[in-house]
Amino acid sequence: MTPTAETREAVAEVARGARVAARSLAELAAETRNAILLAVAGMLERRVQDILAANKADTDAAQREVLAGRMSRALFDRLQTSEQGVAEMVAKVRAVSSLPDPLAQAIVTTPLAEGLTLHKVPCPLGVIGIVFESRPDVIPQVSALCLKSGNAVILKGGTEAEETNALLVTIWQDTLAQFDLPVEAVNLVRTREDVSAMLELHGLIDLIIPRGSKDFVNYIAAHSSIAVLGHGEGICHIYVDEEADLEKAWKICLDAKTSYPAACNAVETILVHESIAAHFLPEMIKRFQGKGVEVRGCKRTRVNLGSLSIAEASEGDWAQEYSDLIISIKVVDDFEEAIAHIDKYGSQHTEAIISENRETAERFMSLVDAAGVYHNASTRFADGFRYGLGAEIGISTSKLHARGPVGLEGLVTYKYKLRGDGHTVG
Amino acid sequence: MTPTAETREAVAEVARGARVAARSLAELAAETRNAILLAVAGMLERRVQDILAANKADTDAAQREVLAGRMSRALFDRLQTSEQGVAEMVAKVRAVSSLPDPLAQAIVTTPLAEGLTLHKVPCPLGVIGIVFESRPDVIPQVSALCLKSGNAVILKGGTEAEETNALLVTIWQDTLAQFDLPVEAVNLVRTREDVSAMLELHGLIDLIIPRGSKDFVNYIAAHSSIAVLGHGEGICHIYVDEEADLEKAWKICLDAKTSYPAACNAVETILVHESIAAHFLPEMIKRFQGKGVEVRGCKRTRVNLGSLSIAEASEGDWAQEYSDLIISIKVVDDFEEAIAHIDKYGSQHTEAIISENRETAERFMSLVDAAGVYHNASTRFADGFRYGLGAEIGISTSKLHARGPVGLEGLVTYKYKLRGDGHTVG
Repeated sequence: MTPTAETREAVAEVARGARVAARSLAELAAETRNAILLAVAGMLERRVQDILAANKADTDAAQREVLAGRMSRALFDRLQTSEQGVAEMVAKVRAVSSLPDPLAQAIVTTPLAEGLTLHKVPCPLGVIGIVFESRPDVIPQVSALCLKSGNAVILKGGTEAEETNALLVTIWQDTLAQFDLPVEAVNLVRTREDVSAMLELHGLIDLIIPRGSKDFVNYIAAHSSIAVLGHGEGICHIYVDEEADLEKAWKICLDAKTSYPAACNAVETILVHESIAAHFLPEMIKRFQGKGVEVRGCKRTRVNLGSLSIAEASEGDWAQEYSDLIISIKVVDDFEEAIAHIDKYGSQHTEAIISENRETAERFMSLVDAAGVYHNASTRFADGFRYGLGAEIGISTSKLHARGPVGLEGLVTYKYKLRGDGHTVG
Repeated sequence: MTPTAETREAVAEVARGARVAARSLAELAAETRNAILLAVAGMLERRVQDILAANKADTDAAQREVLAGRMSRALFDRLQTSEQGVAEMVAKVRAVSSLPDPLAQAIVTTPLAEGLTLHKVPCPLGVIGIVFESRPDVIPQVSALCLKSGNAVILKGGTEAEETNALLVTIWQDTLAQFDLPVEAVNLVRTREDVSAMLELHGLIDLIIPRGSKDFVNYIAAHSSIAVLGHGEGICHIYVDEEADLEKAWKICLDAKTSYPAACNAVETILVHESIAAHFLPEMIKRFQGKGVEVRGCKRTRVNLGSLSIAEASEGDWAQEYSDLIISIKVVDDFEEAIAHIDKYGSQHTEAIISENRETAERFMSLVDAAGVYHNASTRFADGFRYGLGAEIGISTSKLHARGPVGLEGLVTYKYKLRGDGHTVG
């Protein structure tokens, strides 16, 4: 969608305001940033009835859309919040306030000459654009992460959550004003056209974080020259090696598929070494089918299955993120074929090997090019909270800047400060 | 330029070979990587006469181009090497071998559960594409940096250096073969069409490093969805504060413009606080003009200059990287106007303040969004060797991944290795 000149200018004006506000945030001490977060949490708590009223306006309108068949029940559910929901928002903002300061990383100091010292110091990125679908609870959390790291933020949520989002942003802005800070540190834009305009603002927006479906993330990445932190796909594999402990393999594969099939870290394809296929497969398929998983196998997977019956996997299956209770299984000749398959079809997200041979496992983890490489563990561990990051701003399948589950460290960069006393190079 | 299907496939084949080779490199111990570098250095030394003969073939052809007016003398000079030139190539490869191992950064270990441990470990990026103009001495140095960091490389040099480049790459490949490593770890492609094909290989090439003119770098960045490490522009400013020591200011400004005007870290615009303009400007302009610098000033710069005469700067001057003995000067009302000017026209490369007020200088360094922010020092210090990085693969004006002068750290990323014993999340 090409934005009109008017929209373009309006959104650029928001971004310019955010850039100026970002300069104020960059100067704040960690204690002040944390104090603001606690004040926001307090105001969210005090205004819980207002938030619920705004949310009721959104859900009343959405209810009509659901009845008219124009909105899914799932979307409606994500839109709706409650006293419990607001309490969770409050808890998340408080949790961010107690995380370590991302701007307090070690500073590297290098003396370049007498009286001339170079300091490499962490600093905020500047202005972060976050585009998400419905879910109003995203606003307090991502705004908290941006403020904690000294960044201004431009938010675009689902239009169906308009009233709730607007009130939540107002609560942020009111709190910022109480601290004599520019309210343009937290901004809300409203339409898809606004998003198109945002994507053009290279130089004013430093990073775009799209949160939503794969297609949504791919669309954003394809339509902007601004850096994007996210992942388009999560085609994760588990390779069951010839020296696998089969009980571990059955348990891990089942967990990686069924514990939350819609997650990007769920497994999509199991690669099985041919020497253990006959032992591994029947029981594995039985367990999958017992949990309602549709199994699709290569030709070699489908022989010797006895009474079990599974569909044949096509070439397209290897390249597909099902995000559902479907799994594809391929028998491979050896370790090398497994690695080559992952290199061809994987999305550099999370890849696992099941093996009792530590050397094989180490080779797998060294050779496979992915953000996460696991030995005898479920791919479902790929998550910022499980990794102990305290918060997750997204999962990145890019190799640059931040990779894998990304916490506050993804929102900071560094600069070189050089302090001299009249030094020249000549 | 749109590559033909044939070129596309040929270059993709090179990249696929490089990816496979990169997996072998990723497994090499630091001692092996360094031993290869020393062996390359030795072979460059032994084959100096062959290199000079290949270079003579290139320069003979180029000589005809110069005489016919189709090649500049400057380009010819960069193309030509000598015994001394080869000795410098050898020294640079040896220097890279003695740098610290970029893959030996501290590993961060987090226990996630009993028997389940997460390790964040450095690893190579994979395949690096480097596109440069003539200068055959680039090949040994950047190939050395890539090998040191465990990356495969695809090189495209100037066609006028074809024979020299081909021999230098052969020397690399012969050495790799002696170590039983795939020769596809170092590759040469030859035409502009090959470059266009490279730029399409998202997923096969992990990073493109263009080395050359601003227009060249901008072209590469605009035509690829692969990450680019480089800088399109270097519009650097020096702000002379009201509390500046004028002797330091005159000295630093003169150095930053005249010590190497073609460098990206040379200053292009001086911003002068209005309260010291009358004292600062006449002497500054006299010194600039004494060194043959063309001075262009805003209206307020041009008053009270006595016998001095300078041209008026137009709006276009503030947005221009002269890369030449030309400087623009603007008088600003205050600190805030200086910051706003830099925010509008700067390229986030290197920005300096001259002031005896430490607090003002610290605010400048905090508020200005640039890779380098300097106090009382020349912008010309922005350089990987001066920063003590030991080598420079490029200067980045992006805020993500690597910023400012970038050494070996720009060629590595990290991955998460999770080692468990049958762990599931369910």
